[in-house]
Amino acid sequence: MELEIRVQFSVRALSLKVIAMAFEKAKGTRDFSPQEMSLRNYVFDTIRRVYKTYGYQELETPAFERWETLSAKSAGGEDVSKEIFRFTDYGEREMGLRFDLTVPMARYIANNPMIPRPFKRFQIGRVWRYDQPQAGRYREFWQADVDVVGSTEVEADLDALGAVVASLKALGFKDFTVEINNRALLEELAELFEIPRVKCPDLFRCIDKLDKIGMNSVKKEISDKGIKNVDKFLKFIETSGMKELEEKLPESAELAKTKELLKASKALGLGKWLKLTLSMVRGLAYYTSFVFEIKVKGMEKYGSVGAGGRYDDLIGVYGKSDMPATGCSIGVERIIEIMKERKMVDIPKTETKVLVIPIGNTFKDAAKIVQQLRDAGIPSTIDLMKRGPSKLFSYANSLGIPYSLAVGEKEVNSKKYTLKNMESGKQEEFGIDKIISKLSN
Amino acid sequence: MELEIRVQFSVRALSLKVIAMAFEKAKGTRDFSPQEMSLRNYVFDTIRRVYKTYGYQELETPAFERWETLSAKSAGGEDVSKEIFRFTDYGEREMGLRFDLTVPMARYIANNPMIPRPFKRFQIGRVWRYDQPQAGRYREFWQADVDVVGSTEVEADLDALGAVVASLKALGFKDFTVEINNRALLEELAELFEIPRVKCPDLFRCIDKLDKIGMNSVKKEISDKGIKNVDKFLKFIETSGMKELEEKLPESAELAKTKELLKASKALGLGKWLKLTLSMVRGLAYYTSFVFEIKVKGMEKYGSVGAGGRYDDLIGVYGKSDMPATGCSIGVERIIEIMKERKMVDIPKTETKVLVIPIGNTFKDAAKIVQQLRDAGIPSTIDLMKRGPSKLFSYANSLGIPYSLAVGEKEVNSKKYTLKNMESGKQEEFGIDKIISKLSN
Repeated sequence: MELEIRVQFSVRALSLKVIAMAFEKAKGTRDFSPQEMSLRNYVFDTIRRVYKTYGYQELETPAFERWETLSAKSAGGEDVSKEIFRFTDYGEREMGLRFDLTVPMARYIANNPMIPRPFKRFQIGRVWRYDQPQAGRYREFWQADVDVVGSTEVEADLDALGAVVASLKALGFKDFTVEINNRALLEELAELFEIPRVKCPDLFRCIDKLDKIGMNSVKKEISDKGIKNVDKFLKFIETSGMKELEEKLPESAELAKTKELLKASKALGLGKWLKLTLSMVRGLAYYTSFVFEIKVKGMEKYGSVGAGGRYDDLIGVYGKSDMPATGCSIGVERIIEIMKERKMVDIPKTETKVLVIPIGNTFKDAAKIVQQLRDAGIPSTIDLMKRGPSKLFSYANSLGIPYSLAVGEKEVNSKKYTLKNMESGKQEEFGIDKIISKLSN
Repeated sequence: MELEIRVQFSVRALSLKVIAMAFEKAKGTRDFSPQEMSLRNYVFDTIRRVYKTYGYQELETPAFERWETLSAKSAGGEDVSKEIFRFTDYGEREMGLRFDLTVPMARYIANNPMIPRPFKRFQIGRVWRYDQPQAGRYREFWQADVDVVGSTEVEADLDALGAVVASLKALGFKDFTVEINNRALLEELAELFEIPRVKCPDLFRCIDKLDKIGMNSVKKEISDKGIKNVDKFLKFIETSGMKELEEKLPESAELAKTKELLKASKALGLGKWLKLTLSMVRGLAYYTSFVFEIKVKGMEKYGSVGAGGRYDDLIGVYGKSDMPATGCSIGVERIIEIMKERKMVDIPKTETKVLVIPIGNTFKDAAKIVQQLRDAGIPSTIDLMKRGPSKLFSYANSLGIPYSLAVGEKEVNSKKYTLKNMESGKQEEFGIDKIISKLSN
């Protein structure tokens, strides 16, 4: 008999496990609890506010696009198609989830060719990539992009970059650098070192891995691609700056443009963050000249927390030629990880300020109190399970609600209610107006 | 020769058309321009603020879930699987885009069984359904849900409903009704009219179409399902209210609960909106007792703008039994349509307040001015294309930017800048502090 019971238990445990496994979330995706959402919303709201202050306007596009739209960017050199979540709709049309926010924007501009230029748009949203999930990398993640479409001026590059730098500052970051480089200038330089321009996209994609895999592995990858005699070039970009560039390429228009950008960055108060870094190239082949990468000092393990550059030819792929563009994206997931690690913000466990506790037969009176608090904009909740005060105090503590407000018959008669600070345990009696003013800040 | 040119042109026109077609957005999806985003954000932010004021906490879940998770709800009676965007990931696992926010929440609670109850959560986000697009219906649309998990009390139903009603009021709606009914009570009533309980899910699904297709068609559909002798029942629910219910079912516990809810709704200030409507049944079979449906007077063509009910058994499907739940959802897409049709809000074309116009060689000075405005939190933009004032005035007008600020050499020297109201054409000179205070409100 005892054995039989044991067997029943284990069958039950097994079936519960089967249910639990069937209903796990999809691999590489995350749920965000209310407390995590508070931090994420704080980050998104701060970025949104700063982007708007810089005169950028919000665009929203669908989560999925036609396959042709998503795969067209591959023509720009990078094959992302294997990372795209692809599906066929019931009309047998190929679709895919967006893997970045740049392609939908380019498609939007091609669909809306009369849009006034420069079009300064931002977009904050989720994107999806089929990738092996690893620490800090997910199949569903958020990006926060800011782009200027329609201008070839360096002021446009700096305007987008300025919005990103200001967002990082507003989030409390002080110790970061913005590495800048110019891929067109680097191609001229490569040519000078007798590396054919046509090899540059592959070469740069290898160099982009420098931080991750080190110089020896980069050299091996370059060699595996059949690109020869790169040692002098690599040494130059690792050890040189503006002075050496001026000696090598005194006539270069791209060098002049780079100097113009660096000069303008000082006038715009961005100079202190910028650092010309010839070995920072970005992996994406669609960047046509300037590239940016932002790193937080001491947090290099997270890689860059922001990146971008100029992509003057990409929108042309979608049918709208003559649309130069430049932009920058904040790596919000990494930002959030660093903010957590450094404890940069103190996010309360809940935004709810007070739990109203009816004592005895006072629900109706307590409901009126909670309604007054809510009408005053104070996030408030009330017992919904007819539980006694001690269970409700535990409930408030488990949620992290900072105050409770007891409403018994005595309180209803005196119109003074007992406000309890759940952390200190201190209790005081106040009228409703005083309670509202105390909880309002 | 002329002919050849013509042929070239038409080939070019054709290829442009091919490009334009290839890069359309996916069927049933929408782009949202900055001005549309302003209205949508106003609606979402208002709902989010009110939901928080009612003590609800935000949850976010992934866009896609395992197929097993999404299809499990079908066990509850409704077959939504044909509406789900389904795909196979590269690990050959079946996935689907979420079609509502209730299933992911149920899965979340099953995955987090220790969550304190009641769990009062809200979630605002996009969902996807494969549906024939028609006026006001899209394959990608947003929902704004509020739910109480863990309580069987009528106060929980009313708390969720109260948050939705308060949101509608905060958005400026005054003339709506909340139809309420109780499906469990209606089943008792059906039994009394000799309709077997087992037929009720089908019967109610037919009755749910009453507003759309009328009584004669409803009767035909009921008859097609093989359900007989329903005329007296249909007549009763069309013409009766509380008084007739009390005569028919004087002993019913569900009737007592319904009366309890109606009484409590008065104490909570919700009574004036509620209307017991026995013919309003909701189509979803997973509702176990109360159901709600909100309609705006004069806007019945949009259907309900909010709906919900109690679903005590659904979360059990995901492995966490004994989790009664109730909730309500705002049909944000319909709300937005009605707000547009009624011109309920005056959303500016852009949130950018001022365009700074450098005149002559003053970009550096103008950049400092725009930085001061941005530091003061005033959404500002500056010429990024080195254009002259007349082009820039047109640009400001085309975007709807209400002010321009000219910065010429004279202005730089006098530290007084010309602020132009772009609508009235009025120009005045001010120092920067005065400009900041003028533009701050």
